[in-house]
Amino acid sequence: MRKLDIKDVEDIALGAALLGAGGGGDPYIGKLVAMGAIKEKGPVTMLDPEEVADDAVIVAIAMMGAPTVLAEKAVGKSEYDTLNQTMTQYLGEKISAIIPIEAGGVNSMLPIAASAKLGIPLVDADGMGRAFPELQMVTFTIGGIDACPMALTDEKGNNVVFNAIDNKWTEELARAVTMSCGGAVSVALYPMTGAQLKKYGVKNIITRSQMLGKAIRTVKECGEDKTPEEHFLEFTQGYKLFKGKIKDVLRETRGAFNFGKVMLEGIGEYKGQEAFVEFQNENLLANVNGEILATVPDLICLVDAETFSPVTTDALKYGKRVYVVGLQCFEMWRTEKGIELTGPRYFGCDTDYIPVEERCKGGAANV
Amino acid sequence: MRKLDIKDVEDIALGAALLGAGGGGDPYIGKLVAMGAIKEKGPVTMLDPEEVADDAVIVAIAMMGAPTVLAEKAVGKSEYDTLNQTMTQYLGEKISAIIPIEAGGVNSMLPIAASAKLGIPLVDADGMGRAFPELQMVTFTIGGIDACPMALTDEKGNNVVFNAIDNKWTEELARAVTMSCGGAVSVALYPMTGAQLKKYGVKNIITRSQMLGKAIRTVKECGEDKTPEEHFLEFTQGYKLFKGKIKDVLRETRGAFNFGKVMLEGIGEYKGQEAFVEFQNENLLANVNGEILATVPDLICLVDAETFSPVTTDALKYGKRVYVVGLQCFEMWRTEKGIELTGPRYFGCDTDYIPVEERCKGGAANV
Repeated sequence: MRKLDIKDVEDIALGAALLGAGGGGDPYIGKLVAMGAIKEKGPVTMLDPEEVADDAVIVAIAMMGAPTVLAEKAVGKSEYDTLNQTMTQYLGEKISAIIPIEAGGVNSMLPIAASAKLGIPLVDADGMGRAFPELQMVTFTIGGIDACPMALTDEKGNNVVFNAIDNKWTEELARAVTMSCGGAVSVALYPMTGAQLKKYGVKNIITRSQMLGKAIRTVKECGEDKTPEEHFLEFTQGYKLFKGKIKDVLRETRGAFNFGKVMLEGIGEYKGQEAFVEFQNENLLANVNGEILATVPDLICLVDAETFSPVTTDALKYGKRVYVVGLQCFEMWRTEKGIELTGPRYFGCDTDYIPVEERCKGGAANV
Repeated sequence: MRKLDIKDVEDIALGAALLGAGGGGDPYIGKLVAMGAIKEKGPVTMLDPEEVADDAVIVAIAMMGAPTVLAEKAVGKSEYDTLNQTMTQYLGEKISAIIPIEAGGVNSMLPIAASAKLGIPLVDADGMGRAFPELQMVTFTIGGIDACPMALTDEKGNNVVFNAIDNKWTEELARAVTMSCGGAVSVALYPMTGAQLKKYGVKNIITRSQMLGKAIRTVKECGEDKTPEEHFLEFTQGYKLFKGKIKDVLRETRGAFNFGKVMLEGIGEYKGQEAFVEFQNENLLANVNGEILATVPDLICLVDAETFSPVTTDALKYGKRVYVVGLQCFEMWRTEKGIELTGPRYFGCDTDYIPVEERCKGGAANV
């Protein structure tokens, strides 16, 4: 158990935005919400997963919708109270602790805010170890845990409870309501026991985010024996896939998702070469010189070529210089069921899943 | 109190289809469902509104969605059980009685089926006295009664509970889920007390449907002193707006609604004249020779020129010969709030509401 204070939030937001793999929203907005809540209510208690009782009632808290819409909507004061009340009423039990559903600029931060506001501890675990665009894409689905009952509320006060037949249907129905509510809502879902969380959750992901964030923030304090680039690839255990300048971004908002493709022209040692990255909220596939170097569920991260700060898909701009880096996903995503849920074919990419470290053999650098 | 048996259902379906004003779905399908349930469980107990205790808990049962879609979906066995359980759990009270939300071929029938299956009595009242396309268009909204908590379930077993901020938002959110579920679902909504029902409901509408149905079925047994047409206009208290042959039907399914326009060329005494009727599930506006003769909330009914059977908007076909008849709506629809909810301007028709009897002065016949 430890306390998360305002100073912790900064690094968690930065590291989680990297794990967001292009999605998960703007870390700046998430950060403000979490910091505001801690300022008002005091530091948040974060439990290590091993400290959670087997019969504790755990619920994931998140925002659902296109992150670009969230930026235009305030996160309401009473939304977490409503979600907590609805869930408690439905489950007939008090909620013992909250978890984030994914790592990302916004959805790593909002559970901290909810924890502060509700006075309910946070657990250092989530259901993705990265960000994904659809709610059934969690390790909990692999473990057969039901997303329902799921509570949804918007800033106007609309409140909906779902009991769908499976997690894909929960996604379908909740997405429809999310769109009707203007494209971004707050949700509580995946009620589960402490035992289930310990078995299927991605453990210590908030601590990992914080360490990554700190390392990014201090990336240039790496001594003289290595370059910041080497340092970054070392602490992220990342594969350098490309370095380039954004020459075009194609975007489309469809069904409350941000779809698109970013085109890059090589700089530095990649001069004269070309790459593109496809995304649906998160980056799905990186293609360099006609060769696929990484796909979901592995993480494809764009980071600023100077500061190594993560660049989310909504912040992609012409002329920006970025690294494209591949990170290995959580091991459960590499199982048959994991690939079925989040592999490239699910997203309409015509390729099998091949782990990033195999795709990069003899090609991209992992210093 | 009286019992509704299989033989009653036939006439109720026929009369309710007339009151459906073009909408409310195919009476044949509704009838089969209601008859099947009575066959299985026995006759249904129908209470007169005055027999309902002031503190009784009443819930409306309906299908939501485009009636044309319903025809392709089976009405599941367990849907009413699910709705009853969800509502009872949410309200913390047992449901004393069921009402239809509207008059129409399907939504007059399904509450009879639900009443039979659940063993819960039906009350002889509804919230429209006709059919309307959106769920906030009920006299209960005029009375300030909340549509929520509203339960929705589909034939697959998906189950959603809405607590929206107002009845228009309930419509919006439930419509989105209805579309995601394939366009037609079962719902329980407008939980209210017996006192509220007696104050704001359209009373004795099932009995009225049955009397209209019987009169249509026996329209030609009217003796020699009048024609079937005169007889029909007398017992419906209807205004004859036109008689013609369908020469074109424009249709569009949009947002789980059936939109369209039917074009008519005059026959009999209307030879050489033209008319059209616009609809959104229900008929909205009748225009004869360039003059508007009736609009919502008054009822615009198309009936077969030979049998006087109601012709729903999904059954409009080239060459069919029909009467266009206008009926006065329930008085509460003619209030300011009623016209705001269901008047022509709400549906995008550029005209004020003028009661059908005023529009027809000196024109259309009311024998």
